Amino acid sequence: MTVRRLSVYTRCLLQLEEDGVKTISSQELADRFNLNSAQVRKDLAYFGEFGVRGIGYYVSGLKAELQRILGLDREWQVALVGFGNLGSALFHYKGFARQGFRISAVFDDDPAKWGREIEGVAILPLRDLPRETKARNLQIGIVAVPAESAQGVIDKLAVAGIKAVLNFAPGRIKAAKDVRLKNVDLSIELETLSFYLAQAAR
Amino acid sequence: MTVRRLSVYTRCLLQLEEDGVKTISSQELADRFNLNSAQVRKDLAYFGEFGVRGIGYYVSGLKAELQRILGLDREWQVALVGFGNLGSALFHYKGFARQGFRISAVFDDDPAKWGREIEGVAILPLRDLPRETKARNLQIGIVAVPAESAQGVIDKLAVAGIKAVLNFAPGRIKAAKDVRLKNVDLSIELETLSFYLAQAAR
Repeated sequence: MTVRRLSVYTRCLLQLEEDGVKTISSQELADRFNLNSAQVRKDLAYFGEFGVRGIGYYVSGLKAELQRILGLDREWQVALVGFGNLGSALFHYKGFARQGFRISAVFDDDPAKWGREIEGVAILPLRDLPRETKARNLQIGIVAVPAESAQGVIDKLAVAGIKAVLNFAPGRIKAAKDVRLKNVDLSIELETLSFYLAQAAR
Repeated sequence: MTVRRLSVYTRCLLQLEEDGVKTISSQELADRFNLNSAQVRKDLAYFGEFGVRGIGYYVSGLKAELQRILGLDREWQVALVGFGNLGSALFHYKGFARQGFRISAVFDDDPAKWGREIEGVAILPLRDLPRETKARNLQIGIVAVPAESAQGVIDKLAVAGIKAVLNFAPGRIKAAKDVRLKNVDLSIELETLSFYLAQAAR
């Protein structure tokens, strides 16, 4: 099962919980959130213990289990590298903190930004990365630097001991073997829409 | 098949083409890009006509076919609503133009920004949306406004005739029936990483 689908189910269950729904069948879940019902049934079968025949799944129990699997039952300390427009937008993005991702260190190579504080977090030069990684137990890096700087930054994160990186810079990046690199390509999201428009125009 | 996987295959094929690779088997494609080989085989079987027994698939032919299906064989005019940090980052995001998504109109509700030009595109008040949609044949909207303004903006896009919307604002949004709404939740990307770290810590 892809991790992304686990994340999607978790969000659906959170919403159901907010709405006061206690139990739900895989069919209802699929209908309500426009998911593929065969896929939902198959995926949730892994979590059979949270289901009750004829009733469905316990919303809170299943949600908590998925959150545990996704590592959302704890707080992660995140290093943000690059505080331009994108970095600033990501720093203020409410969704991260809500899921337990706390940006507790910000780095930028522009000396003019060093020492500036945003919501209690100081912007630091990249050379402080190894020290801060240890001091703050940073475990995840978010890279929001221009394409030409990305490889260097990702190498430095690895050396500092950060083993999981979310990269927004385009282009080909090589990560060390023991580093989990996730590249975000925002145009993929737009392609779902152009696909739909192209089909509709046919 | 999910549209997202088509996008991923298209990127892989583009990269192979750049590297001068002419043909590839589904197994090689899977190995090279760390994809699920059974899934790749099954997905590409739809495009059997681009495959040759014992050789694999023609990289350029398959790529062009996937691009056509995804609507990437033409240029789309995109309206960006919200020119704060995120909007500005999205406007300058190189990946959109590369895939044929052209941000040709920018809207913001801050009068201080009206009339300002960025790379030849003027920032306009939202009330100009219906007129600009017609004049510029805008077909896709990108919404980068605060959560509390998002529903209003998405309603206005629908009224103006924009039937496909990529929304970055968090929270629950309702779209009209004939509007394709795609919500981007950046924390989902981080959850792939926390999943990996949580598993590794076990």
